[in-house]
Amino acid sequence: MRKLLLLQALFLTGAAAAGEGMWTLDNPPVETLRKAIGFAPDEAWMQRAMHGAARIAGGCSSSFVSRDGLVLSNHHCVAECLGELSSAKKDYLKDGFLARQRSEEAACPAMEIDRLERITDITKAVKDATAGLEGTAFKQAQNAVRAKITAECAGKEGSRVRCDVVDLYHGGQYKLYRYHRFQDVRLVFAPEQQMAFFGGDPDNFNFPRYDLDMSIVRVYEDGKPAHVEEFFPLSPSGPAAGDPVFVVGHPGSTRRELTTAQLAAERDIELPARLFRSYELRGIIERYRSEGAESARIANSDLFYIENSLKARRGMFEALVDPALMARKLQRETALRAFVAANPKLKATTAGAWDDVAQALETFRAFRDRWQQVEVGFAFQSDYFDIARRIVRGAAERRKPDAERLPEYNESALPQLQARLFSAAPIYPDYERLKLGFGLTKMREVLGADDPFVHKVLARESPEQMADRLVGGTKLGDLAVRHALWDGGMAAVEKSDDPFIQLALAVDPEARALRNRYESEVEARIQKGTERIAQARFAMEGTGVYPDATFTLRLSYGTVKGWKEGDRDVSPFTDFGGAFDRATGAFPFELAPSWIAARDKIDLARPLNFSSDNDIIGGNSGSPVLNRRGELVGLIFDGNIHSLGGAYWFDDRLNRAVAVDSAAILEAMGKIYGADALRAELLGGKATE
Amino acid sequence: MRKLLLLQALFLTGAAAAGEGMWTLDNPPVETLRKAIGFAPDEAWMQRAMHGAARIAGGCSSSFVSRDGLVLSNHHCVAECLGELSSAKKDYLKDGFLARQRSEEAACPAMEIDRLERITDITKAVKDATAGLEGTAFKQAQNAVRAKITAECAGKEGSRVRCDVVDLYHGGQYKLYRYHRFQDVRLVFAPEQQMAFFGGDPDNFNFPRYDLDMSIVRVYEDGKPAHVEEFFPLSPSGPAAGDPVFVVGHPGSTRRELTTAQLAAERDIELPARLFRSYELRGIIERYRSEGAESARIANSDLFYIENSLKARRGMFEALVDPALMARKLQRETALRAFVAANPKLKATTAGAWDDVAQALETFRAFRDRWQQVEVGFAFQSDYFDIARRIVRGAAERRKPDAERLPEYNESALPQLQARLFSAAPIYPDYERLKLGFGLTKMREVLGADDPFVHKVLARESPEQMADRLVGGTKLGDLAVRHALWDGGMAAVEKSDDPFIQLALAVDPEARALRNRYESEVEARIQKGTERIAQARFAMEGTGVYPDATFTLRLSYGTVKGWKEGDRDVSPFTDFGGAFDRATGAFPFELAPSWIAARDKIDLARPLNFSSDNDIIGGNSGSPVLNRRGELVGLIFDGNIHSLGGAYWFDDRLNRAVAVDSAAILEAMGKIYGADALRAELLGGKATE
Repeated sequence: MRKLLLLQALFLTGAAAAGEGMWTLDNPPVETLRKAIGFAPDEAWMQRAMHGAARIAGGCSSSFVSRDGLVLSNHHCVAECLGELSSAKKDYLKDGFLARQRSEEAACPAMEIDRLERITDITKAVKDATAGLEGTAFKQAQNAVRAKITAECAGKEGSRVRCDVVDLYHGGQYKLYRYHRFQDVRLVFAPEQQMAFFGGDPDNFNFPRYDLDMSIVRVYEDGKPAHVEEFFPLSPSGPAAGDPVFVVGHPGSTRRELTTAQLAAERDIELPARLFRSYELRGIIERYRSEGAESARIANSDLFYIENSLKARRGMFEALVDPALMARKLQRETALRAFVAANPKLKATTAGAWDDVAQALETFRAFRDRWQQVEVGFAFQSDYFDIARRIVRGAAERRKPDAERLPEYNESALPQLQARLFSAAPIYPDYERLKLGFGLTKMREVLGADDPFVHKVLARESPEQMADRLVGGTKLGDLAVRHALWDGGMAAVEKSDDPFIQLALAVDPEARALRNRYESEVEARIQKGTERIAQARFAMEGTGVYPDATFTLRLSYGTVKGWKEGDRDVSPFTDFGGAFDRATGAFPFELAPSWIAARDKIDLARPLNFSSDNDIIGGNSGSPVLNRRGELVGLIFDGNIHSLGGAYWFDDRLNRAVAVDSAAILEAMGKIYGADALRAELLGGKATE
Repeated sequence: MRKLLLLQALFLTGAAAAGEGMWTLDNPPVETLRKAIGFAPDEAWMQRAMHGAARIAGGCSSSFVSRDGLVLSNHHCVAECLGELSSAKKDYLKDGFLARQRSEEAACPAMEIDRLERITDITKAVKDATAGLEGTAFKQAQNAVRAKITAECAGKEGSRVRCDVVDLYHGGQYKLYRYHRFQDVRLVFAPEQQMAFFGGDPDNFNFPRYDLDMSIVRVYEDGKPAHVEEFFPLSPSGPAAGDPVFVVGHPGSTRRELTTAQLAAERDIELPARLFRSYELRGIIERYRSEGAESARIANSDLFYIENSLKARRGMFEALVDPALMARKLQRETALRAFVAANPKLKATTAGAWDDVAQALETFRAFRDRWQQVEVGFAFQSDYFDIARRIVRGAAERRKPDAERLPEYNESALPQLQARLFSAAPIYPDYERLKLGFGLTKMREVLGADDPFVHKVLARESPEQMADRLVGGTKLGDLAVRHALWDGGMAAVEKSDDPFIQLALAVDPEARALRNRYESEVEARIQKGTERIAQARFAMEGTGVYPDATFTLRLSYGTVKGWKEGDRDVSPFTDFGGAFDRATGAFPFELAPSWIAARDKIDLARPLNFSSDNDIIGGNSGSPVLNRRGELVGLIFDGNIHSLGGAYWFDDRLNRAVAVDSAAILEAMGKIYGADALRAELLGGKATE
């Protein structure tokens, strides 16, 4: 009942519940903060928060923690890099990594860290460019104006500057986010994965928790550690229960503003289809992992990713089948529609917006499976295919003017695309066979054995035969081959006899047609609908509300606190002693040898993890938790199980963020890992040399 | 629109749409049939249909096809037996089976075939026994009266007579079904699995289709072929398009009468949970199968079962997320509730029934996961555990009077239970490890690593370690050990140091408590609610409606016809030539060598499979398709993809049954398999000797 009342209050006044809200840094809820926690950050505080925080382009948050470019994030945010640096002989995921001197800091291929520098409102420019347009014309105009604005913003500094057009409130506002871009990122420290992810999948999204889910990298510029003015020194003591805390990070995606038709489509179609596929793939990879030490090493990070997203999506599904959620969303939507209906001007422009969105979704239902298989690429689940498609499409797109390209091939996007395309990360042929065989099998299952596209792709081969032939015949594992194809453009692509290049070429016409159909008949129509709904909401609620998460920098406030799980009080802190108590010796509850060896040195009563009622979601991994002085007291790495419904609503009674205590980071680096110089640098001392 | 009108007509008058309906044999829709197809079976026809049909206790239908006890069913209905007869040296699933003389007919362990002999109405006796009772008392009284009635019915002939109390219309009627029981079943013929299931999972539930999904067994009594008076001779020509046809078989379960609250629970909770688990297990077993020829052989039949039920449940899920379905169900329920509200007497007894059902489901939601893990046994997915639980519970239950036992341990149920318990079917330890490890891992995932029951079961072991220890240490693979434990009763069980027996003993108190809670707080309450709803429906619609399927004998009528798939006409017939055209040489589109060798002899234009608009569902596999003369013209083996929604509604435009043509059976036996004597017996000739 209490939740419902609070949300009605929000609905009527625009005020958020305690803890709720992912606020953009140019629109912090100053008055609410003052009332809720008796403290509101001033402009200097906000500036420092903005420049101390950083985004990892692959999907994580992080922050600067020394003047010489040290960046703190989660272990799972650098797991890909650890995997890429590892081999059958040396497994850094298993053993951890510590650079004892600068020269040992190891480059992470394909890793990019971006620091937000400036936010500019470009709503008028974007809306003017698309005014009166529909379908393909709308989409093309929007792509063109975005390309133009980002190109002007980055100018000739593309390797150091990144500019993104950000869509807030589902078309209510458009903002230009200008970042300082770091593409030379080197690994400094990571603990053993079994300590970063102690408790594994069973404990994931659960609390109490005992994880040292941390990593440290350093950003370089011109071959030297980058000098940064604004960073967050680590608090030696961590926070206390009841302390107000701020999270400054990059929540990836929330869906709190969706229409009920969009929510129903997620519940009935999108989430189930994803979950069914991912559960099956998880089963295959689980068994593959059990086949040997090397297959375990190869599959490890994919399996982590799949299991993590399975749990997250399962939690989202369970929130959507909670009848209370849909009832509340419907109530809110009904009230907004009534507000629109009562206002003649709004009614004329906006009354049809909800039905437009619903009809676009209905249109989508007829071809979404095909679009997902062919254009999204579910049918061709393979690193080689991803490379081949980028090369094939890149050759076609780079011949066009910037404004006419698919957005991922805009000049401003090429640095990151090339970093991935030319990453030296190893590709494992047997594992590629497994994944591609799975993708092709599912394609046949979803589209049907008699489908013309399926016939064209498989001809008379079985999925396994085709996967064997393609993986056995490709040369795309060779970086020189990729460079030659990328540099050679369409002429080189068309001459290539590489089977993945030929596949990507063969399916591209149908894939592009499906993309175009999706963008014009579904995406553009939904966007035009939600733009109007956002304006109606502003008219009713004002602009003192926060927008859905978009993997852009947000401020969340809260306090360090536990919650009540049924009749049981969950304490907000765990300690090192708890990790030793929980260990069984069997995976995933097995302590690393370094911890067992250091047991007598560690202060077992020292806090290890804590929970707070900050409003976070996937993408916030690695976010700094700051106290009001701007010291880093914690490192977000997870939410509790109730936080998964946070995609759709925020339940302040139960939704909790989970962080590593800054005191635990310092304790572990000093007493377990012997990383004293690094520890000193984190406390504001000189850089390690 | 047409569908909706037809259903409204049904609702108002009790008349069914063309093809719709699974009618009990004591209540055939004579007038409807006369109007719909100009022919209504007389009493003699119905008697012969009842005695010619037969049920395979494991979940299939079948029919007698010779006076010497030949029984025709599907290949997939004897796949378990084929697997049990096979070994690493001889694989009858792969190679097929043909007994060229009587002495080669091979006993199928654990197979039971039942022929319905008599139907008696016992509604009053059952309802009188439970009148005025609630919860546990209701459930116990119902168990007791069922045990008493079945015991009296079977008398001392338990090995030859089987009696089941059948619940029709969800408590609207109770009937006693008395069967002639055959427990000596011997395999006579099965083609290669690749021909029975040509097209494999991709083609499953699809049409056009090219499968010889047939098998022939013979029932024996006193060591000799059973003599049967009533059987269905095979029609040499099969049916023609437009012919009226009758299916007499055992549809397992439909859910067309469920309340909207029950449907929502299936859509939001039951089906997703099952699907998520099954997709993951499918992935694991798929990969296991790929690891070698022997693991493929071992996993084959489980994988078929899992993939088949995945497709069926996925189809059910997709029907439930079709907004039109729920709207129609709600409309129907609203009308019935209005009818009840308008009738003071009905209102007093029945108005609360729907809310009672909904509240029972809400109660269930809080403990269904635990109930499913612990009592249903998802946590302990293993043949060894199933054996251990039967032994442990059997020891406890057999000490009680019959009326007080759990129903599966009633005297009348013991013959089938013992046949399974003492089956010589092989158990594969590595495969047991895989399944048990999966079950224990999911238990920990679903209940949580900190759950007391999980702690009790796993202690400090990982799921894999525990599975290793139990499978490595058990002696339950030895039939003599099972016999000794079963015969030794509780004393032997309590002395046993077998790890599975110890596990089954250790978890039994919690499992029984959950079962009791489920039966008293959920099942009894739902049953009391649906009994009242059924009476209201009879009051409104009369009793000229068919009940939901309950794996009891039903008559369905229809005609041989295709359907319109979008703009495309699907013809009702495929032929042998089509199978050769479809073959690619790659699994699962690979023809068996016997077919390739016989190509020149086969009449390629001869029909192979056909579709009709009979109303069937899982459990109908192996049902005879009869013409009006009572000749067998086809053998049901599947439905089309649209038939999967048939669990909840019947769409006569799209829902089709799929059968093997009788002419194809005879063609294949003569020209491909050289089974001439058997073929002659099917045509009404003398038995093979």
